[in-house]
Amino acid sequence: MARVIVDVMPKPEILDPQGKAVTGALQRLGYEGLSVRQGKRFEIEVEGELDQTRLDQLREASEKLLANTVIEQFDVRVDEGN
Amino acid sequence: MARVIVDVMPKPEILDPQGKAVTGALQRLGYEGLSVRQGKRFEIEVEGELDQTRLDQLREASEKLLANTVIEQFDVRVDEGN
Repeated sequence: MARVIVDVMPKPEILDPQGKAVTGALQRLGYEGLSVRQGKRFEIEVEGELDQTRLDQLREASEKLLANTVIEQFDVRVDEGN
Repeated sequence: MARVIVDVMPKPEILDPQGKAVTGALQRLGYEGLSVRQGKRFEIEVEGELDQTRLDQLREASEKLLANTVIEQFDVRVDEGN
């Protein structure tokens, strides 16, 4: 059982209202000098062998379903720790 | 400028309806044999030097604000690639 991690983050040029809200909340709690951007993390358990074809398929699926590539960038990688 | 990554994921024993929905949607798109869990990823730019005190502070902030530790687990790490 292989595990693939897909990180989806707002593109740098895109405003990130969630991240801004978290940054503000941290400041109000006394945590200064931080700037937060918020995205999504998907942990995908893959049945069977994880070969290049399967990984390409996952990249395609991420682009179609997990990320909105107009405003988000994504990164697909194999979780070696598992 | 250091960067810290905080990953927040639903605890293994907790149901994850978002992840279940994504798993189902992937199946309907023809991507079989996948099981998805969905969480959050925070990228935090830290002004100034990132020492142990600052990192402990960030861990405390994550526990207070970024994760709901009743149902979520979190991981704080320095992004070495930056």
